[in-house]
Amino acid sequence: MSVPAFDLSAWVAARAPRVDAALDRFLPRATAKPATIHKAMRYSLFAGGKRMRPALVLAAAEACGGTEAAALPHAAAVECIHTYSLIHDDLPGMDNDDLRRGKPTNHKVFGEGMAILAGDGLLTWAFEILAQADDTKRYGTRDYIRELAQASGSLQLIAGQVADLEGEGRDLTVAQLRYIHERKTSALLRCAVRLGGMSANCTPAQLTALSDFGYNVGLAFQVIDDILDVTQSSEQLGKTAGKDERSQKATYPRIVGLKKSQAIAAKLTRQAFAALRPFKGRAGALEDLAQYLLERKN
Amino acid sequence: MSVPAFDLSAWVAARAPRVDAALDRFLPRATAKPATIHKAMRYSLFAGGKRMRPALVLAAAEACGGTEAAALPHAAAVECIHTYSLIHDDLPGMDNDDLRRGKPTNHKVFGEGMAILAGDGLLTWAFEILAQADDTKRYGTRDYIRELAQASGSLQLIAGQVADLEGEGRDLTVAQLRYIHERKTSALLRCAVRLGGMSANCTPAQLTALSDFGYNVGLAFQVIDDILDVTQSSEQLGKTAGKDERSQKATYPRIVGLKKSQAIAAKLTRQAFAALRPFKGRAGALEDLAQYLLERKN
Repeated sequence: MSVPAFDLSAWVAARAPRVDAALDRFLPRATAKPATIHKAMRYSLFAGGKRMRPALVLAAAEACGGTEAAALPHAAAVECIHTYSLIHDDLPGMDNDDLRRGKPTNHKVFGEGMAILAGDGLLTWAFEILAQADDTKRYGTRDYIRELAQASGSLQLIAGQVADLEGEGRDLTVAQLRYIHERKTSALLRCAVRLGGMSANCTPAQLTALSDFGYNVGLAFQVIDDILDVTQSSEQLGKTAGKDERSQKATYPRIVGLKKSQAIAAKLTRQAFAALRPFKGRAGALEDLAQYLLERKN
Repeated sequence: MSVPAFDLSAWVAARAPRVDAALDRFLPRATAKPATIHKAMRYSLFAGGKRMRPALVLAAAEACGGTEAAALPHAAAVECIHTYSLIHDDLPGMDNDDLRRGKPTNHKVFGEGMAILAGDGLLTWAFEILAQADDTKRYGTRDYIRELAQASGSLQLIAGQVADLEGEGRDLTVAQLRYIHERKTSALLRCAVRLGGMSANCTPAQLTALSDFGYNVGLAFQVIDDILDVTQSSEQLGKTAGKDERSQKATYPRIVGLKKSQAIAAKLTRQAFAALRPFKGRAGALEDLAQYLLERKN
């Protein structure tokens, strides 16, 4: 759709250190007793993630005329949830992954028990951090907490993990796959832009637009993840490539083929762009992030 | 200390069904998609727990002149945290327990992956439920969430689990053991009575008294747990007895002997009673609960 008015990497690069600084500030020191768990929590939190969800929170806040300072607790909370879900997802009892973002997974370094607790710790801190966010005229702690709890709870994010776990090795329809992606990925991305909007005291109409945007970007993101798993090497991805294929996991490329998958991803991205029309050009950072997510190689 | 003015079992028996009804109302149906995880969450939540923490929430609210209705979301949230911590604690990567409350543990019934997710789900719902509690004049959602997140986070409840995990098979001092018990047990019991007080718009002085009470009852409770592990059978306990001894776990009886352990438990309980003096007899239910916890056989 519109041509980005600025360079995305510069936009994200300028903000990532401030997101990292906020995470560092909100979390207990690595030396806080018991040190092992705080080292374990920080190991995964600072393992080189792209900070895509925090970027979406900040970009949504910007689109609604808010400040970065007000959005940072929201950004940090969402990243804690994302990181905890990766730690638990990688566990032997779940996906049993050894590699994540090019590094050994949490349980490979700290052991299974500590990885379970590190995930629990990050999940719990997410709510503690979010309870520190300022109220706005329209929204307050109650709204923030319910937003995050619902998006990451057993009807959304966790539901997606469950359906994913139960779907492994089975033939799924596109509708079933979409059900998984809506919960496993879209829910938290949608939550990220909604919390960003709330931190900026967005209007109800803006909140609806952000929901629509986040939903579509989330689905596009997951389709692209499936595509990259078959088109890229482990080195390029920073995680084990071709794993979906080997584990007989249902993916878009497996069900509808690579070409159609790419068309679906492009369509979802167009729908995401369309959702931003009410912002009349003030959502440049969000548009650019969506463009970046579609074109990414890892 | 004082003789209870009423029969505890009748007091708890009258409230337990209403706590269960609140949990049932707050949690998604067992048939909510995906059904497996909601069945798993409900399996452990309704596995015959004593509802001691909810009882403490309600008794604290009563001591501060509050209503049961206002305290029930707090009671349900604390019980969700307690249940999640048991599910994760029993996992093969942690304590590897097969039996809990006389029934197979969550992962024995639903598998390891689902048990991890069921714990995550209950942890997340705790905050969703707590965000539904009404504000009072002095306290609101922000206070409730921070109270629960801190008590159950990586500096308290989870810290206790970590220290417990790392202490296994090692010789601990009484001070180290107390550090574990303060976090593993006292933190959440203290949180339970504080939340009950907050739900009743308690004064700062009442909140301090409740903290002191909860801290001491929590330590007493854990010392008694250690004692029961060596004095009772698996059948009486409803869980594997003598496990601490076999796993070379540091316990009060191992470190200071059975008789001294019983004296410590009695002293902690007296301190708990003393903390209730400012309530001038209006904390009968709390006193009786403490008495019950000291005399329990499982």
